[in-house]
Amino acid sequence: MTQTLAAPLSAEDCTVQSMPDASPVKWHLAHTTWFFETFVLEPEVADYRPFRPEFRTLFNSYYNTVGPQHARPQRGMISRPGLDEIRDYRSHVDRRVLDLLERDLGGAALDIIELGLHHEQQHQELMLTDVKHLFSLNPLRPAYQESAPLATAEPPALRWCHHPGGIAWVGYGSDAFSFDNERPRHRLLVEPFALASRLVTNAEFLAFIEDGAYQRPELWLSDGWDAVHKQGWRAPLYWWREDDAWHTLTLAGPRPVRPDEPVCHVSLYEADAYARWAGSRLPGEIEWEIFGARAAVDGNVLETGLLHPRPLAVENSDSPAQLFGDVWEWTSSPYAPYPRYQPPSGALGEYNGKFMVNQLVLRGGSCATPRSHLRATYRNFFPPHARWQFSGIRLASDAP
Amino acid sequence: MTQTLAAPLSAEDCTVQSMPDASPVKWHLAHTTWFFETFVLEPEVADYRPFRPEFRTLFNSYYNTVGPQHARPQRGMISRPGLDEIRDYRSHVDRRVLDLLERDLGGAALDIIELGLHHEQQHQELMLTDVKHLFSLNPLRPAYQESAPLATAEPPALRWCHHPGGIAWVGYGSDAFSFDNERPRHRLLVEPFALASRLVTNAEFLAFIEDGAYQRPELWLSDGWDAVHKQGWRAPLYWWREDDAWHTLTLAGPRPVRPDEPVCHVSLYEADAYARWAGSRLPGEIEWEIFGARAAVDGNVLETGLLHPRPLAVENSDSPAQLFGDVWEWTSSPYAPYPRYQPPSGALGEYNGKFMVNQLVLRGGSCATPRSHLRATYRNFFPPHARWQFSGIRLASDAP
Amino acid sequence: MTQTLAAPLSAEDCTVQSMPDASPVKWHLAHTTWFFETFVLEPEVADYRPFRPEFRTLFNSYYNTVGPQHARPQRGMISRPGLDEIRDYRSHVDRRVLDLLERDLGGAALDIIELGLHHEQQHQELMLTDVKHLFSLNPLRPAYQESAPLATAEPPALRWCHHPGGIAWVGYGSDAFSFDNERPRHRLLVEPFALASRLVTNAEFLAFIEDGAYQRPELWLSDGWDAVHKQGWRAPLYWWREDDAWHTLTLAGPRPVRPDEPVCHVSLYEADAYARWAGSRLPGEIEWEIFGARAAVDGNVLETGLLHPRPLAVENSDSPAQLFGDVWEWTSSPYAPYPRYQPPSGALGEYNGKFMVNQLVLRGGSCATPRSHLRATYRNFFPPHARWQFSGIRLASDAP
Amino acid sequence: MTQTLAAPLSAEDCTVQSMPDASPVKWHLAHTTWFFETFVLEPEVADYRPFRPEFRTLFNSYYNTVGPQHARPQRGMISRPGLDEIRDYRSHVDRRVLDLLERDLGGAALDIIELGLHHEQQHQELMLTDVKHLFSLNPLRPAYQESAPLATAEPPALRWCHHPGGIAWVGYGSDAFSFDNERPRHRLLVEPFALASRLVTNAEFLAFIEDGAYQRPELWLSDGWDAVHKQGWRAPLYWWREDDAWHTLTLAGPRPVRPDEPVCHVSLYEADAYARWAGSRLPGEIEWEIFGARAAVDGNVLETGLLHPRPLAVENSDSPAQLFGDVWEWTSSPYAPYPRYQPPSGALGEYNGKFMVNQLVLRGGSCATPRSHLRATYRNFFPPHARWQFSGIRLASDAP
Repeated sequence: MTQTLAAPLSAEDCTVQSMPDASPVKWHLAHTTWFFETFVLEPEVADYRPFRPEFRTLFNSYYNTVGPQHARPQRGMISRPGLDEIRDYRSHVDRRVLDLLERDLGGAALDIIELGLHHEQQHQELMLTDVKHLFSLNPLRPAYQESAPLATAEPPALRWCHHPGGIAWVGYGSDAFSFDNERPRHRLLVEPFALASRLVTNAEFLAFIEDGAYQRPELWLSDGWDAVHKQGWRAPLYWWREDDAWHTLTLAGPRPVRPDEPVCHVSLYEADAYARWAGSRLPGEIEWEIFGARAAVDGNVLETGLLHPRPLAVENSDSPAQLFGDVWEWTSSPYAPYPRYQPPSGALGEYNGKFMVNQLVLRGGSCATPRSHLRATYRNFFPPHARWQFSGIRLASDAP
Repeated sequence: MTQTLAAPLSAEDCTVQSMPDASPVKWHLAHTTWFFETFVLEPEVADYRPFRPEFRTLFNSYYNTVGPQHARPQRGMISRPGLDEIRDYRSHVDRRVLDLLERDLGGAALDIIELGLHHEQQHQELMLTDVKHLFSLNPLRPAYQESAPLATAEPPALRWCHHPGGIAWVGYGSDAFSFDNERPRHRLLVEPFALASRLVTNAEFLAFIEDGAYQRPELWLSDGWDAVHKQGWRAPLYWWREDDAWHTLTLAGPRPVRPDEPVCHVSLYEADAYARWAGSRLPGEIEWEIFGARAAVDGNVLETGLLHPRPLAVENSDSPAQLFGDVWEWTSSPYAPYPRYQPPSGALGEYNGKFMVNQLVLRGGSCATPRSHLRATYRNFFPPHARWQFSGIRLASDAP
Repeated sequence: MTQTLAAPLSAEDCTVQSMPDASPVKWHLAHTTWFFETFVLEPEVADYRPFRPEFRTLFNSYYNTVGPQHARPQRGMISRPGLDEIRDYRSHVDRRVLDLLERDLGGAALDIIELGLHHEQQHQELMLTDVKHLFSLNPLRPAYQESAPLATAEPPALRWCHHPGGIAWVGYGSDAFSFDNERPRHRLLVEPFALASRLVTNAEFLAFIEDGAYQRPELWLSDGWDAVHKQGWRAPLYWWREDDAWHTLTLAGPRPVRPDEPVCHVSLYEADAYARWAGSRLPGEIEWEIFGARAAVDGNVLETGLLHPRPLAVENSDSPAQLFGDVWEWTSSPYAPYPRYQPPSGALGEYNGKFMVNQLVLRGGSCATPRSHLRATYRNFFPPHARWQFSGIRLASDAP
Repeated sequence: MTQTLAAPLSAEDCTVQSMPDASPVKWHLAHTTWFFETFVLEPEVADYRPFRPEFRTLFNSYYNTVGPQHARPQRGMISRPGLDEIRDYRSHVDRRVLDLLERDLGGAALDIIELGLHHEQQHQELMLTDVKHLFSLNPLRPAYQESAPLATAEPPALRWCHHPGGIAWVGYGSDAFSFDNERPRHRLLVEPFALASRLVTNAEFLAFIEDGAYQRPELWLSDGWDAVHKQGWRAPLYWWREDDAWHTLTLAGPRPVRPDEPVCHVSLYEADAYARWAGSRLPGEIEWEIFGARAAVDGNVLETGLLHPRPLAVENSDSPAQLFGDVWEWTSSPYAPYPRYQPPSGALGEYNGKFMVNQLVLRGGSCATPRSHLRATYRNFFPPHARWQFSGIRLASDAP
């Protein structure tokens, strides 16, 4: 799957790093393989000889327990190894892992292989968001794929789906796979609240822009207003004015902004300001999870092949629509450990725990997330200024 | 009181801005008066003529609703108005406010005057922390005041004060004054936990340093480890090695680090790393408040005149000691609105609400906080890298 | 004289550093005294005890041979010693130097005292330019002094003063005082050239602006065009638009730009672009010196008390007017050593030689330069982007 | 030739930009073709249709007269067009230019074609220096080519080659090709001087390092000493300590520093400090040219294929050796126009003239310069901090 995603890309496309937050596709391809080599082959294969010993440092992302790392902002300087050699690296490690799986592997090793597969799914999404960012810096505006236009829709009016509050169980509790940050399952006291029946659309966000959003400090968090000024934000990322109309970049190339689509590529600051302008607020992650736990994990995910949020065509029901897929939904919840959270021991303890500050939780998955990667308890997280992910807005409100 | 605090300072001391986070004392003196002029005199006095119209912009901190602001990092460029003129400004406004108080003022105006007094107390503390930072940049290491040495103490062993968990009421609920961010009072479900009986001492923090703290990435949050590297941290702020011993700067000048004092001038990152190293964790703000609500609001506050945390001399009891005064205690709680929080309408709505992102809550007050300013529900907040406040560490742990 | 220049300034004015290129007046007062203490008293007075030993580092500008220096951008952090203590320092050192002069001092010591006096004259000018910069950052736009308005003049038309070229002697050759960088006197081969009869006026520079100067890259050196963009230059420093007219800041406060005055506060880049636009070029420093050597060293210098360039009222003659005083005139000559230049030995060898790269020579002196400080051979130097000095433009051209 | 130089490089190698000063090889390949398309085909071919209209902006380096330019630091973001498309672009334009040459082209067009060829030679050298810089950032330390080791040599002792001074003619005077900055030929008065018989070697530079060069401020220009500190320089670029010995990177991979080779990859600051330490000075560019004009234009240039400076094996003669090839020799001469210099009219006037500030002249050519590109009058130029070119040191001295 990962290599299929890379297939439309040239060796040059796979090499460039467009900003420190993004990584070259070649690095994603190598790092996900490094994960299996380091955490599965090294401990499990007697006398394992690494494919190339230098890769241990070169493709280590942030595991200090494993050793030093090649500096993140320098990932784009590595013109060699080339894409071909990285493909060989992947084949080599994949084959060895498959060999291992035919043996009688212990549960711990199987758990790590499962973790490695989920880890790779995370990087599949990042490959797409990072390539989109790279292409956005190219004045030729290349496209990653062709796509047929979707029919226009008229999204239903926004309704509120109510919840009475009370003691709620949240977090992942079963024995199947989850990331450590979804655990432990625990109880919370929740106030009555309501969640919007659908995502905020471009049409709605345009009304916000036209009402002076980016010029009105009273709508913004203080740090958000600073970001608006320092970054010169005037619209979501990848939007620009041309011939008196807003255009945007998609993975299928540039085109006019469609009013019926969910708004995408907004920061937490923009999501929060929009909610304030709309007289409501963002949901807490637990509020989202309560409704998410009742919904089917399906929607406009990676497998639809659209790679772009799509207009909502269905009618409103009592349950919120578009919970999974389309866009990651910003919540107002700072990314923090659940009560009695314990990171795993060893290097994999660095997977999630050390990032639990200065970020906010997003829920639900996007049009670039594999379906099998998602769960109602899944906690994604990014800093409040991040805009290059497929991130959008769902409103919430206090119940009357 | 504010002018008493400024008394030991020269006109030059009051003019310089040592970093963008800090403000000149002259600015603090003017801004707190500006607060009364803008929010009390302007609306309450018919045909009020401002002391100098330019001050409306010059001494506006961050109230966009009031109008533009002189850029924060440029506050130290304002050599004029001089300190004498600012004193005239204060007298002028004070006199007019006292005049007003003799009239039959409405409740709203009285509320704002009360808010203005609490606002001024906040700046009293900032004057001291900002002057301390300024003096720390002066190779002559000047002292703000003289001070007699305190007797050495042997702090009692750290004990755990347990709480059984359950539904707890938190936040401010009475009619008396509180800041908006302490409201509304609401219920929460709390897991069983324990709070340390006292603050972490310099002796304990030195053991952490000597165990390689600042060289061991596994102890740190990822952003904390970055800060250690980028800022070159090797010890708390204001510490340096001299003649093979750690020294520190106090408002009474430089002296050796005393092992029996609470550690001070640490960031959230250092507090968090220390807690991890010690096998425990930082308290949540609610855990702190539960014990704080039972304690007397007293301790080593501004009124003791020490202006430095002091060793704990008393014996342990079942209740945590040193909850109020000495140092602000970092909690693990991101600064976020309480459920159903509503900022006030108008300019004063900018007082707290717009800062509720990218900061963490500190509780308890410091040796530079006026006693009458403190409450168990009081929520102070700073970004996780801030170190120039009197900030220290109390541990917490999950109950067994 | 130095203290007279500081007299209109408050302790606050004397303390603030407005940018790394500028120094606080208090620092100038202390550093010029430091020069005498370090280079005269220390070597000449047996058992000399310094006024305060810490000043050796604190007020050392850039003499590595003397020892470490307080970091230049931190000069504004030194709120203490206060202005009063610096005045005591000056009195103390002045008295000791006067004592010395009554003894039979050797020629070397007398030479250094003479150098110290010229050094102090340089800092007198810098005090004025640095205070002007500081006041420009103050929205209240304070004035350093009052001044009576000058009568309007109609500057004479620009004429060319021709020189036939040939072998010329340049540099300082007599036994009297000069800086080392003016030596040795040497011969050069000069092409025929012409020098403009007067300085470029604001009226002429306005025509340049109105012809799109700051939007036309073809007029600029490449680095100059970068500076225009990065710094957002649209006019000379201290100019702004108000009520549809250009205004400027003078040491006597703000006022409209007068068309008849010499243009001032331009960078080398602006001077060079103006010359290109005018179809001519800047003079080489030797071309300037050839005419300067024939002119009387007089004009609108510090002693006139205007502290601002003044309109030229006299008629044209065969000699260029305004060569001395008014504004430092940018030349096209990079600041480089003369053939066989030798810096003095010891610390004073650092006075000039180590700056002979990345700067350009300015000639003639300004309205803030003491008359006795100037000579036809005098070489001032600043980086090409510097604008806070009283720097202006004289044109030159190749002879036909 | 240009494509031969690119032959050892992968598509990935050709895409990455390692720093703003360097460009991707793909960009060099495209820009040199753009030069022919823009300056030859567009004006000469009626109804010329550009290969791709977007390339006009994308591959414009700095010609404002031609139009806007893709931002220099973003040249590495252009993953598309890929290397293959750039090769097509080159073939297309080459073919059209060859077609043109078969017609009866005017002299002006032929002049521009000649200029385009010399322009391309400049970029051939830059391709090599830029790839070397890129590979230096790769921890795998790739090699551009294989190379056989050279025999060790014992360079002859340094001798001084004297010149009596007097009136000298310099600059390019014939009708053949030269760059505009080498003109006009003109006379100068030169003092007696001497030029070193050979380049400074690594052995000599090592003695300088071991004498504390990088810790002794008195040896450096002030800006140079700043660069040493800010950049952390401890040795020439591409040197590092390993197993108690200095190693360096060459285009044939890493290897120990050879004492007999000319020192290379030093800045003007290091060259100047070395000369001061050695009790001599750098040559003026005219001093170099006087000897250069008598020497054969030959040496270790691109055509030897070494791509690295080589030890001097020949005996001393009365003439300086190694004048051409090996390394560009820093001179003390700021890059400035010759008297009566006139840039060409039109866009090509931007070729040289607008860079004549903030740079210094280097003479002689390097091991990466094509032989036919060099002349005694050739003026190369770089800022004083630049180190990634093949730049070295020749000493000069005043004659006794």
